[in-house]
This record gives sequence, structure tokens and C-alpha cells, in this order.
Amino acid sequence: METYMEMLTRRAKEASVEAAKLGTADKNRGLLSVADELTAQQDMILEANEKDLEAAKQKGVKQSLIDRLALSEKRIGDMAEGLRQIAALDDPVGEVLYMKTRPNGLRIGQKRVPLGVVGIIYESRPNVTADAFGLCFKTGNAVILRGGSDAIHSNQAIVHAIKAGLRKERLCQDLIVLVEDTSREIVSEMMKMHGRIDVLIPRGGAGLIANVVANSTVPVIETGTGNCHIYVDETADVRMAADIIENAKTQRMGVCNACESLVIHSGIAAEVLPAIVQKLKNHDVEIRGDERAQALSDQIEPAVEADWGTEYLDAVISVKIVDSIDEAIGHINKYNTGHSESIITRDYDNALKFQDEIDAAAVYVNASTRFTDGFEFGFGAEIGISTQKLHARGPMGLEALTTTKYIIFGNGQVRK
Amino acid sequence: METYMEMLTRRAKEASVEAAKLGTADKNRGLLSVADELTAQQDMILEANEKDLEAAKQKGVKQSLIDRLALSEKRIGDMAEGLRQIAALDDPVGEVLYMKTRPNGLRIGQKRVPLGVVGIIYESRPNVTADAFGLCFKTGNAVILRGGSDAIHSNQAIVHAIKAGLRKERLCQDLIVLVEDTSREIVSEMMKMHGRIDVLIPRGGAGLIANVVANSTVPVIETGTGNCHIYVDETADVRMAADIIENAKTQRMGVCNACESLVIHSGIAAEVLPAIVQKLKNHDVEIRGDERAQALSDQIEPAVEADWGTEYLDAVISVKIVDSIDEAIGHINKYNTGHSESIITRDYDNALKFQDEIDAAAVYVNASTRFTDGFEFGFGAEIGISTQKLHARGPMGLEALTTTKYIIFGNGQVRK
Repeated sequence: METYMEMLTRRAKEASVEAAKLGTADKNRGLLSVADELTAQQDMILEANEKDLEAAKQKGVKQSLIDRLALSEKRIGDMAEGLRQIAALDDPVGEVLYMKTRPNGLRIGQKRVPLGVVGIIYESRPNVTADAFGLCFKTGNAVILRGGSDAIHSNQAIVHAIKAGLRKERLCQDLIVLVEDTSREIVSEMMKMHGRIDVLIPRGGAGLIANVVANSTVPVIETGTGNCHIYVDETADVRMAADIIENAKTQRMGVCNACESLVIHSGIAAEVLPAIVQKLKNHDVEIRGDERAQALSDQIEPAVEADWGTEYLDAVISVKIVDSIDEAIGHINKYNTGHSESIITRDYDNALKFQDEIDAAAVYVNASTRFTDGFEFGFGAEIGISTQKLHARGPMGLEALTTTKYIIFGNGQVRK
Repeated sequence: METYMEMLTRRAKEASVEAAKLGTADKNRGLLSVADELTAQQDMILEANEKDLEAAKQKGVKQSLIDRLALSEKRIGDMAEGLRQIAALDDPVGEVLYMKTRPNGLRIGQKRVPLGVVGIIYESRPNVTADAFGLCFKTGNAVILRGGSDAIHSNQAIVHAIKAGLRKERLCQDLIVLVEDTSREIVSEMMKMHGRIDVLIPRGGAGLIANVVANSTVPVIETGTGNCHIYVDETADVRMAADIIENAKTQRMGVCNACESLVIHSGIAAEVLPAIVQKLKNHDVEIRGDERAQALSDQIEPAVEADWGTEYLDAVISVKIVDSIDEAIGHINKYNTGHSESIITRDYDNALKFQDEIDAAAVYVNASTRFTDGFEFGFGAEIGISTQKLHARGPMGLEALTTTKYIIFGNGQVRK
């Protein structure tokens, strides 16, 4: 007997075969139809969302989660607009990356093709449902979604509208499959669907991601956590350093590319730290430093070892004083999560050294870490930010949802 | 207290930091020095190999394993020659794949960098030890090797020679780390080294690969198993079909890109099957077919369901008769392992349809599946053949051992 998850993944796999055959025009028609349907069915979606909000309030969940969960006409309009923007992007599928002729006359090319079935495990943001569908569908994949139990009614409603939009264009309903079982067991089963799901992308907090990485037999793309550093080199422009740090810490606190830790060269610390402290204190940021940092400002609390490795996602930052760029690089490579790191410097050699030696997805010179994002990088869309090294690293646009196949044209070649 | 595996992975990680800083000339010097040292120390290596062969014979292992395990002056010479060839290849590390300037003036580029620490788990071929080291070192990675217990003395000797070669060029000894514990428990521990090993590549039989996929928390690149099909379309050139099938099945039987199953259009089966049967019977290949195939030749044994999904790696092949290209594609996509598939046809539309719809790493028209190989594809080297869709698909050359990082040059940009 087929289990519920086997049934869902079988349907998604079958749909993915159809999805791979769709031309760009078909896919764009589908996206626009789904966008229209989301707007047309917004009352139904808001009503379902109300149920989730009610339940969440009764459970006494915290306000930040309620904020993520809550939909509005504007948010539904944004989801629809997102799908229209995806329709306007170039379709990466079908591109032949190169083709060459071998000495034996074989023409060997490498062609971009869909991954197949993409699984997304996420928490309570219902907008991920429409977003993930749009990106996967544009790249010729079927998507199987397992959202948080807190958002189940909202997700059911959004998926209902998406399927209606697909139906109107006579496209396969199973291009989007929602896991409606909200138990934890079903997530464990989903992670074991090797061969039935081609890639699993967890989107959410560090706990969710660690669970998927530890337990999945399906290949995983790790996203998200960012313990991002800014290193202020001895030759930094003081005002630039303070402005960039203010931006990277405070422009949006709860995001993965926000700055969580400062590393400052001892030769400039006395000059630059007061300017930085003032900027951060204007935003009520708590600053935790080592002893040398504390000695330079009475507004710095003591840092403990755990501070160096913590992604606060909050109004807290740590400060470490170092005596050389090598010490700075060593510290950052020890504690970072492979996300985004920046150096503020006027020294040419140190700029290149930092970029060469820091092990992270995005390494900046004289800019805020907040730019690590598919839209800021010019990809037009983003399915997440990979902090792993395989397949995709950094912001992932449409191409990250594709793979390649070798296509070989012969006329009777056999191997000698 | 640090465990043995934690110690090994720490040393490999530290070495990988040094490896990433090496220039191409340094790496090539190292490769040539190691090549010389393998030849210089061949007596020591052969003596160690003798111990392994002795133990294997006493254990009564089968001849094919003894053949894989056995070294000779020629095989050691081939290992050294392999390293010299790797030295002659272009170094992919440091290439900037593109760089563009964003509207805010940020220059964003994507640069090819080493993966870090590559783990290889393999069986009893000691030549993998030198091979894997060469490819990983050329791409600026440290490698941690866990070979089969049957080859432990050979591997220790080869690693000893490699380290001597590195030492002569004042390169870090820990660029190659051999796991000398031959227990199964250590493999389990190695697979849990998430964050300490960047990628794990299993090389060996289906059982080994399945074990690593099921249990590793380190990202895995799946290699190897190939249940490869050749589909003879209704319009195929009969002689070409027979020649290609003979080559793909018999040129080398025990390899992953050998043909294991034939799918033949009913409209040409009566004409083509006798020619194919004759060719295969010249090589004593056992042929197992469905009822329609059996009806066309008395040299075809009955196939059972299990035959369609079996990678024989032996002198056996299965035959299925179909009534359309769609049926052929459906059958192949159901039973293949995503390795190499070929169509023999004179029909333009069917050639393209097969290439579009077959889900595999390499899809051929009118050529033998035996070409799926890094050398035949012109990569100059091969670390394995990926049958998964993430990161690398098909034959993997040096590029598969690299990742990218985004490098961003600013002059004070902050996010609005």
C-alpha cells in the first residue's frame, strides 16, 4: 500500500514530467493566470488566514510569528505581483551552455534542464507558498510544499487558488502539491523520499535547517543562517565604516544578512569605536565587546565566548579587537556561518587578501552585508540564500532550480 | 577530548586553508614531485601491496577483487603519469565567471574557489588514492581518504610516498589524510562530519553508495551505478544498431556505462534482433527478453520484472519490445539510474524527443553509451560520474571539485 507521502511524491513526479515539456510561453501564461486567481480569490484566502491567526492567538504565540503569519490585501497583491515578475524573467531551461565536437566527431553539449521535484519545508510565512511555486514552475519543476502547521488553512487556500489558475490554462494540478498532514512524522517521512524528491530546501530558523541537514536522505540545499561580520581595517575611512556598520546592523535587524559582529584593528579602534557606538546607540543596539573594546567605551558590555558564534537577529552586536588582518580573518573564519562578510579598508592588498581568504558565500569590500539578496544581485528573484558549497552558493535565483544534462549527437560512434 | 576522526578532519581543514592559498605553479610542482616519489618508492609500495594480496587470498576473496587490488610497476607508473597529466591541466581555481556593475555602483563577480575538504570513501582500488589526491590538490582542496580495509597496507604506502613528495616541495603534509582505522564504525563517524568535511564522494559498489546517501550529514555526490539502455527506434540503421549495441555491452562488461538493457521498437524487432543476438552471442552474452522478444529468437531466455532494474555488470542483457517511442521513454525513465541512455534512429523528431524527455546525465543519439567518461568528454581527468542532479551531473572533472564565492567591490554602499 502506498503511504500518503508516497502518493504525494508520485503525483509530483508525474507532474514534473509534464512540467519539463512545457515551453516558456505556456509557463508564463500559467503564472499570469495564477496571479489573477490569487487576487480574485483574496477574500477566501483572507478568511482562511483569519482561522490561522485566531488559532495562533489562542495558542499564545509571540507577536513576531503573528506578523509573519498575517495576510492582507496588500500582501496577497504582492504575491500576485511576484508571480508576474517571475513571468517576465528569462527562462533558463533549455539553454545549451556549450557544445563542442570531439576528435571522433561526437558533438557533446551541456544543456540546462529542470531538477524535477523540489521539496520545500518552511515555517509560518504563507507568502513562501506562492513564491516557491512561481520559481519552481518557471523552471519546469513540480513543487511539494510542507509549510508550518500554524499556517495550514492559509496555505490550503493559497494552493486552492493556484490550482484554479493552473486549471484555467489546462495545466496539470499536481505541479503544486501541498502536504496537508501537519504532524512532525510526515516531515521525517518527506526527508526520506530519496529518488522521489530531487532536492529539499528548508526555509526557516536554524533548528529547522539543522534537523533537515541531519536527517534527510534527499540532497539538501542549506539556506539561511548568517553570523555576518564587518572587519574595520587599520586604514579604514572612519565615517564610511560607521555608516556601513549602522546600515548593516540596523536597516533590518531580523534578517540573515544583517551584521552580528564587528572585528576592529587595534590601530584604529580608539578612533573609530566612538563613532560606531554612537550610531548603534541611536538605534538602541546593545554592544558586547572583549576587554580591549570595553576599555574604549563605557557603553560596551562584556562579551562571553558564546557571543562570537551567535546570530542574534536582534538589537545586539559583538565587538572584537585584533592586531592584524590575519587575526581578523582567522577569527571570522572560525565563527562565521559562510554567509556574508565585509572589510572596510583603503589598503589594496588587504582588500584582495580578505576576499581571497575569507570562506563565505559573499565577501565584500567597503559595502554593507545587507546586499546579499537575489534582487540586489540582479537575479530578479530568490528562492533562498545558500550557505553551503555544493550546487549553489549565495543568493539563489532561477538557475539554482535547474540542473544540466549532457546531450551527445553521434553518427555511429563506438568506443575503441 | 578530540576523537580520532575529529583530529583527522581538523588537520585536513587546516591544510585546506593553506591549499586554497597555493598558486597554480606551486600545485604543479607538488604534483610532479609526488609523481617522482611514487616511482622512486615503488618497491616499498609493491611490498605493502603484497601484504594486502596475501591477506586477501587467505580470506578467500574472489579473483575480480584481487585483480582490482593488485599493483605492479606498470600500475604505479600509470598513477605517476596520471599526476603528471593533472599537472598539465588548466587550473580552474580563481577564474571569475562573470563580473557586472549594479546600478548602485557595486561590482559583483562570481569567482571559482576550492571546496575545502573533500572526503572519499572507496573500496579496494589503491590507484584511487593517488588519483583522488591529484585531482583534489590541483583544485586547492585537502582530501581525506577512507579506502577499503583490504587495501590498507597499499594505501598507507602510497600515502607515505605522496607525503614525501609534498615534503620535498615544503608543502603541507596534511593535504592528504588517510583514515587508518579500518573499522566500519569510523565510516559512520566520517559521514557525520558535517561542517568539517565539505563534500563526500563514495566510489564503489551500489551498497557502499546507498549506505553513504542514507547516513551522511555531509553533502554527498552520488556516483556510479548505471542501468544504461539503448533504444532501437523503428527507423534505425540495422547495422549501426548492432555495432553500437555490441560495443556498449561488450567492450568492457563491468563498468557503469556499459549497456544493460535493450528496448526495441516492434516495427523493426524482427529485422534487427537476429543481427543483435548474433553479435552478442559471439561474446557469450546471455539475453533475457519479454515474450515478444523470445518469440523472435530461440536464444533469448525469459526475463522477469527484476531484470528491467538490474545493473548486471556482467555478460547478461535484457530486451524489451515496445510499440512506440513514448512507451520506450516511459520504460527507460522508470528503470534507469540516471546515467547514460542512447537512441538509434534516423528520425529527426524522435532523436530530439528522446534527448528532451529522457531523464539521465548523458543522453545519446546514434552512439555507444561507453563514451560517458571524463577523458572521452575531453575533461582530461575524472573524479567519478555523478548520477545525481545537484552540483554536478555526469562525468566530473576538476570543476566539480570547486565551488564559487561572490566577490563584491564597493566604495561605501549601504542598502536603502
